[in-house]
Amino acid sequence: MGLVVQKYGGSSVADAEGIKRVAKRVVEAKKNGNQVVVVVSAMGDTTDELIDLASEVSPVASGREFDMLLTAGERISMALLAMAIKSLGHEAQSFTGSQAGLITDSAHNKARIIDVTPGRIQSSVDEGNIAIVAGFQGVSQDSKDITTLGRGGSDTTAVALAAALGAEVCEIYTDVDGVFTADPRVVKKARKIDRISFEDMLELASSGSKVLLHRCVEYARRYNIPIHVRSSFSGLKGTWVTNEQPDGQGEESMEQAIISGVAHDTSEAKVTVVGVPDKPGEAATLFRAIAEAEINLDMVVQNVSAASTGLTDISFTLPKAEGKKAIAALEKAQGTVGFDSLRYDDQIAKISLVGAGMKTNPGVTATFFEALSNAGVNIELISTSEIRISVVTREEAVGDAVRAVHSAFGLDSDSDEAVVYGGTGR
Amino acid sequence: MGLVVQKYGGSSVADAEGIKRVAKRVVEAKKNGNQVVVVVSAMGDTTDELIDLASEVSPVASGREFDMLLTAGERISMALLAMAIKSLGHEAQSFTGSQAGLITDSAHNKARIIDVTPGRIQSSVDEGNIAIVAGFQGVSQDSKDITTLGRGGSDTTAVALAAALGAEVCEIYTDVDGVFTADPRVVKKARKIDRISFEDMLELASSGSKVLLHRCVEYARRYNIPIHVRSSFSGLKGTWVTNEQPDGQGEESMEQAIISGVAHDTSEAKVTVVGVPDKPGEAATLFRAIAEAEINLDMVVQNVSAASTGLTDISFTLPKAEGKKAIAALEKAQGTVGFDSLRYDDQIAKISLVGAGMKTNPGVTATFFEALSNAGVNIELISTSEIRISVVTREEAVGDAVRAVHSAFGLDSDSDEAVVYGGTGR
Repeated sequence: MGLVVQKYGGSSVADAEGIKRVAKRVVEAKKNGNQVVVVVSAMGDTTDELIDLASEVSPVASGREFDMLLTAGERISMALLAMAIKSLGHEAQSFTGSQAGLITDSAHNKARIIDVTPGRIQSSVDEGNIAIVAGFQGVSQDSKDITTLGRGGSDTTAVALAAALGAEVCEIYTDVDGVFTADPRVVKKARKIDRISFEDMLELASSGSKVLLHRCVEYARRYNIPIHVRSSFSGLKGTWVTNEQPDGQGEESMEQAIISGVAHDTSEAKVTVVGVPDKPGEAATLFRAIAEAEINLDMVVQNVSAASTGLTDISFTLPKAEGKKAIAALEKAQGTVGFDSLRYDDQIAKISLVGAGMKTNPGVTATFFEALSNAGVNIELISTSEIRISVVTREEAVGDAVRAVHSAFGLDSDSDEAVVYGGTGR
Repeated sequence: MGLVVQKYGGSSVADAEGIKRVAKRVVEAKKNGNQVVVVVSAMGDTTDELIDLASEVSPVASGREFDMLLTAGERISMALLAMAIKSLGHEAQSFTGSQAGLITDSAHNKARIIDVTPGRIQSSVDEGNIAIVAGFQGVSQDSKDITTLGRGGSDTTAVALAAALGAEVCEIYTDVDGVFTADPRVVKKARKIDRISFEDMLELASSGSKVLLHRCVEYARRYNIPIHVRSSFSGLKGTWVTNEQPDGQGEESMEQAIISGVAHDTSEAKVTVVGVPDKPGEAATLFRAIAEAEINLDMVVQNVSAASTGLTDISFTLPKAEGKKAIAALEKAQGTVGFDSLRYDDQIAKISLVGAGMKTNPGVTATFFEALSNAGVNIELISTSEIRISVVTREEAVGDAVRAVHSAFGLDSDSDEAVVYGGTGR
């Protein structure tokens, strides 16, 4: 008998009907002979409502008490789901993150998991129960305070439990049918990906694909937990994320490039530091200033310096929300580094092509740039990794760019419409 | 520096404004030099909303999961209160019942406290924090499951913590000004009682006064914790419940009757078992049948049997909600006991006079019955204890009966209007 961890996001348990639908699906997995552990997020708008309440009583909603508040959300959904399962004639028990053994550090609102001790969950399923676990939450090792895991926390809870329990699979139920070769809202011919490697999924996630967050995939890769991303609405098979290459790629094709998909991201801004003296230590001082402002950069690009001036330009992208802070930090550093000026641009988009074997196949890069050129898309920055090429372009060009690349690599499906649902989970 | 436990009910923290008002009051107590521990109920309608949600997903809302669900309510109010206090510049930490060391048995939905280990609360206040504790909830000793204490649970949490922490006083904040000599909605001239003994308060509580529940007063009496019942809206002094007799009652008056108040209760029904054979064991069989149906009886009255028949009638009162169950249990027992018939009446009211020294003052009983007689109130059952006389009468006579007794014992205040607010806490 295998153990399956299923995770349901907020949109899947948004109301009583949703909870009852999820309960049926959970019971089905149990009837198929599995031990079942379910991780749930808070119901639909609960978290937003709690945040609103918090802002009414306090100007600063953060820290220990904010975590205590938010974790009420999963407490409600998990108890209701357990009750719904029991009313279908199966035994279920719900557990808080703390009861489930999700041990974290003390960084409230963005805690990191440092240990998982799922003894109670294991006992519960061994006794024949379906165990329901609150996503997104844990308890701090030092002070035994309630913590939350921050963005994408529930997915991470699910993968962490799957790893600790030795689950066969971690099923992430969401409101889309799986991972697509591009965002179906932009590319109507986007195809659902049947199988994708952890590495490609990581690159897609950090390139703007929102179905799975980087953190959860990273965790799954480290512990080699297969993830099955699928819809809680449709019942279709979704996307398997594993440590294997896609099916049908035998030894004979091992040197071929295998394109997984095209991702895009319009949530970033671009900063260019103009006229940086091209000598050792200057860039370091610059990035130290950014790091001290606690800003995470994405792409960083520096071109060769013009020999005549000994000056170079350094560009990077970062979340738009952090733009102001970065500019302030850089202006403060101008005296030390002595660059000429700063340019800030938040009308950009990043388009990324992700796939294995890309770097050793020069044809991939060529096809990529030809496609963009044919679509009349101007390129402002380029950055590559082993399995990804990313470019920055104008924000208004993003649709054309993504569709052109998607088409050029033969990713278009035969059907004209890809199924997509709205809403996001947590 | 003294330690004060304050408890605020759901109506006091019904919305953001209420929470901010409570926060100010808590900070005031802290500024007065006290260590402060606060017990809160769930916000206003939260519990009802959660119960509604539960009924949408499951026909039976009870047991372990129902407790898990309901305890989300206090989690929200306590975190918000802590945040509101922090925004006033004071340190506050919130704790679940489990974190606060409220150890209970495993009787979900109506758990009993079996131990209180408030180490974390003591540490928190010793570090200068205001500690906020979720009322109504605990954790079971055996299975470490979340439990709730049932009706009046938050008051009991407050008194139990006060006892375990050696608090100077347990302040119960509610939506009325204190304990009154009668229900101010029925008797406009009802007076607020300044001081009352645990014993009298217990009798008032079990006679229908709803300000404090029997269970919480019983706990306070056992550990000798003074309770101060007061309004969270008005800021006036309320009613002190202690192990002392009221002020101004010196040795010279120790043999005098001291009337505390008049309580009434219209939530009960009366069952009469007609024609019970008056021999040993018959009544026992009858009450065993009732007990096995898990029904708590209130008054039980049996008169002498008629010598001619050897049969007697036994009457008792019980909550209306349990009427059907009791009748069913008795009908089942009819074969064994062999009584003639059953009479069920739910149009009754119970009126009780409570005060010390009553039994040794025959004048009290006489005045009581004269008052009822003058008001034209017919009496159906009578039952007495050391410090209480109760009668059952028609439900429609309850107002006249209470006012007549209240007046006859000189309890009427000079003012025509007593202050009263609507709503109930949990």
